[in-house]
Amino acid sequence: MKFKCPKGTRDFYPEEMAIRNWIVDRWVRVSRRNGFAEYDGPIFESLDLYRVKSGDGIVSELFHFEDRGGRAFAIRPEMTPTLARMVAARANALPRPIKWFSKPRLCRAERPQRGRLREFFQWNIDILGDDSPVSDAECIFALYDFLCEVGLTGEHFVIRINSRELVACILENAEIPLERFDAIYAVLDKRDKIGPDAFAQVVADLELTDPQKATLLELGKAKGESGLATVKAMLADHEKGRAELDRLERLLLHLSSMGVAHCCGFDMGVVRGLAYYTGIVFEAFGKGGLQRAICGGGRYDRLIRDVGGPQMSAVGFATSDVVVQDLLDEFDLLPELQTSVDVFVVDAEEKFFDEALALTARLRREGFSAEFSYKRRNMGKQFAQAAAKGSRVAVIVDENTRTDGTIEVKDMSTGQQRRVDVEVFLNDPFPTTDR
Amino acid sequence: MKFKCPKGTRDFYPEEMAIRNWIVDRWVRVSRRNGFAEYDGPIFESLDLYRVKSGDGIVSELFHFEDRGGRAFAIRPEMTPTLARMVAARANALPRPIKWFSKPRLCRAERPQRGRLREFFQWNIDILGDDSPVSDAECIFALYDFLCEVGLTGEHFVIRINSRELVACILENAEIPLERFDAIYAVLDKRDKIGPDAFAQVVADLELTDPQKATLLELGKAKGESGLATVKAMLADHEKGRAELDRLERLLLHLSSMGVAHCCGFDMGVVRGLAYYTGIVFEAFGKGGLQRAICGGGRYDRLIRDVGGPQMSAVGFATSDVVVQDLLDEFDLLPELQTSVDVFVVDAEEKFFDEALALTARLRREGFSAEFSYKRRNMGKQFAQAAAKGSRVAVIVDENTRTDGTIEVKDMSTGQQRRVDVEVFLNDPFPTTDR
Repeated sequence: MKFKCPKGTRDFYPEEMAIRNWIVDRWVRVSRRNGFAEYDGPIFESLDLYRVKSGDGIVSELFHFEDRGGRAFAIRPEMTPTLARMVAARANALPRPIKWFSKPRLCRAERPQRGRLREFFQWNIDILGDDSPVSDAECIFALYDFLCEVGLTGEHFVIRINSRELVACILENAEIPLERFDAIYAVLDKRDKIGPDAFAQVVADLELTDPQKATLLELGKAKGESGLATVKAMLADHEKGRAELDRLERLLLHLSSMGVAHCCGFDMGVVRGLAYYTGIVFEAFGKGGLQRAICGGGRYDRLIRDVGGPQMSAVGFATSDVVVQDLLDEFDLLPELQTSVDVFVVDAEEKFFDEALALTARLRREGFSAEFSYKRRNMGKQFAQAAAKGSRVAVIVDENTRTDGTIEVKDMSTGQQRRVDVEVFLNDPFPTTDR
Repeated sequence: MKFKCPKGTRDFYPEEMAIRNWIVDRWVRVSRRNGFAEYDGPIFESLDLYRVKSGDGIVSELFHFEDRGGRAFAIRPEMTPTLARMVAARANALPRPIKWFSKPRLCRAERPQRGRLREFFQWNIDILGDDSPVSDAECIFALYDFLCEVGLTGEHFVIRINSRELVACILENAEIPLERFDAIYAVLDKRDKIGPDAFAQVVADLELTDPQKATLLELGKAKGESGLATVKAMLADHEKGRAELDRLERLLLHLSSMGVAHCCGFDMGVVRGLAYYTGIVFEAFGKGGLQRAICGGGRYDRLIRDVGGPQMSAVGFATSDVVVQDLLDEFDLLPELQTSVDVFVVDAEEKFFDEALALTARLRREGFSAEFSYKRRNMGKQFAQAAAKGSRVAVIVDENTRTDGTIEVKDMSTGQQRRVDVEVFLNDPFPTTDR
C-alpha cells in the first residue's frame, strides 16, 4: 500500500525543510529585534471561536471534527481568534502594549491553487492595548524589516496604506447609506485585480447618484501625496474625518522617521477583504508578475471584546511561507542552502574506528557538529565524503593517535594539514591564528 | 462569550513559549551536531496510514475527520508513519544512511493526565538504511547528548538497553509458543511499574511450566554485566541468539567508546510497549520520583515495507516536551529565562521622539534588538523601563543629537555613561575595548 501526503499539503524533505526554516528563522529574528515576544496556542480550537469572528459561513472552509464528548473543534485556519482569546483571558494582567508574534501552522479546507494551499505557515505580528499611530508604525516597520532581511527592496514591493475609517467618512459625506459600505469596500478591493476600465464600469453600474459615483472613482484614484490632498479637501468639514486624517499623517511621519517612506504610499483603494478591520489598513504588494498582496494587515479594535474581553485596540498583519517563497522565487532571491559540518572524523584503518567514534562523540559534546563514514573505506573515499558534506576540517585518527595522542587535521578549504594533540584540538578546533 | 483552549491542550503565553523554545532549540542543536537533517510532513494524514501501522484500534485514539470529498484524515498522533511514507516514496534516491530528525506537534484523543496531554511536541531521531550497531549507538548517543545538554547527568537518568530478538530467542529456547510472546512482552513491560513481588506473582499465575516460569523470572532480573552473562549461558547453543548477543556487545563497545557506558545498562526486562519493534530496544528512565521512561526507542526493520517501500532497516526514538519539562522541573533544572534587549532608546524630551524612533529603526536594520517607551514619560521612568526589559545599554536622544549628531550611551550593568557620535555607535554599539 503506497501513501501520499494529502492534496494541498506538502512533505518537507530536508531540502524543502531548509528553505522553510530559512524563511521562518527570519520571521523570528525580525520579530525579536523589533521587540515582539512569541506565543502559541493549540492547533485546534472550539469551532464556535471561528464562528464568532467570521460567521457560520466559515465552517465549510475548516477541517472540523468532534471529540468523543461531542464537542466541536476545528484545525485553526488563522491565528487571530486564538490571539484574541488568549489576550481576553488575561487582559488586565498583561503589561501594555502587548507586542506578540507567532508562526503558526494553519489549515484551510479550500481548493488548492497557486499561493493557496490547504496547509501553510503564517507569520503573525500584533500590537494590542495601544491606540496610537506608533503601534501602526511599528507593525509596518517590522514588515519592511523582514522584506529587507530576505533581500527584497523597493524595486520588488510597495507598502500601501489607507484607513477604512477615512473611506467610511467619505462615503458618509457622499450620503451613501451605511448598509452599503461593505459592498463598496468589496468593489474597491477589486480595483487592482480588474484594472481601471473595468473598475469604472463596475462603479457606473452601481445604484448610486452621479455625484456618489464620481466620489467612488476619485477614491479609486486617490494615491500618494496628491491623493491625500484630494481626500483632505473632501473631508475639510468632517470632524471625525479630520481626526483620522491627522492620525494617518502622524503614522506617515513616524514611517518617514523610521526610513520606510520610500517603500510606503497612501492608497485610498486599499480596504482589505476581512470584515473585522476598523481603522488603518495596509498591505505589501509584490511589484513583479505576481501582482498580488504579499501581506495584509490593519487595525481591529473590536475583536477582543467580541471574544469576551474588554474593549482593547489592536493592530497586526500576517503573511505566509507560501507567498514569501513564491515572491523570492520570482525574483530569484531564494538562497542556495548548503549543508555544513565542523569536523569529519576519518579512520586511517578499520581498527581505529572506535577511536574515531570516541573523538566524534567528544566533539559533539563540546558543541561541534561531527560526522564519520558509516562504511569502512579507504582514506581517499572518506575525504571525498567529508568534502561532499561541506566539512570545515577533516581529522585522521591513526596509529600515532594511539601512541602519542595526536591527530592529523586537514583544512578542507585550503588543503593544509597539521599534526596536533587531540586535547589541544578539542580545546580549540579552529584557532584564528591558523588563518 | 468566553473561550478557553480545548481540554488537554495548552496556551503558550510568552513565558511558557520561552520554555518550550528552550527545550526545542536543544533538540535542534543536538540533532544537527549529531548529523541529523530536519524533515516534516503535514499535520494530518490519511487515516489508513495509521491503520496500517497500528490496526483499527488506533482510530478511537485519533482526532479524525473527512474533507468535502469524503476522504478520511487524522491529525498525526506520532511521526513514524509519516517518516516511513516519505522514506518509502524516495527509498532509492535518498543517500544512506538516512539520518533525519523532526520536532512535530502531535495530537491524541486520550484522557489528559500527568505527562500525557492531547497535544504535545515530540523529538524524533531516526536512522534508516543501516543495519549495523553503529546506527543504534548513534541514536543512543544523540539521546545522551540531549539529556546532558539540558543539565541532566547519570544521577538523574539511566539508559536501559535490550534486544527483543534476544528475548524471543530465550522464549523460543524455553519452548514457549510464538503466539504467547506478545502477552509475555506485556508482562515484562509491567515489571518496573508493579515491583518485584507483584511481578513474581504475575509470572506464577501464567499458564506455563515451572521451568518456563523460572526462565521468565530470570529474564526479569537479568541486568548489567552479570545479567548479560546469564543470558549468554542461556543462549550458548542458540545460533540466532549468539548472533544477536554479538550485535548487542558491539553496540555496548561503541557506546563505551563514545563515553556513554556509565549511563547505560543492559536490562533484559526492557521490551517497550509498541508492537513494531524488531530488535534492539532502549529507554531513558528517570531516576527521581517520576520513575518512568522519559524516552523510548528501538529498531523497527519492517515498517518501511509495510507502507509500500522496500525492506529497509531502521532505528529511532522519540521523547516529548511534556516529559522533558516534568523531569527538569522535578530536579529543579528548568532555566530562569530572562528577556533581553540590546539597546533601549530614550528621548530626553517628547519633541525628540521621532529621532528616537529613527535610531530604533536603524539599530533594528543593523540586526540589534531595540525598544523604546510607548508612553512619553520622563527619563528616569524610561531608564526604569530599560532596566525592566533587561537592556544592555540605554541611549539618550537629546538636543545635542540634533546639533552635533551625538548620543549619550549608558551601560545598564555598570551605569557608566559616554557621549558618542551616532554613526560611530551604529557601527559598533558594544566595543570590547569598553570593558
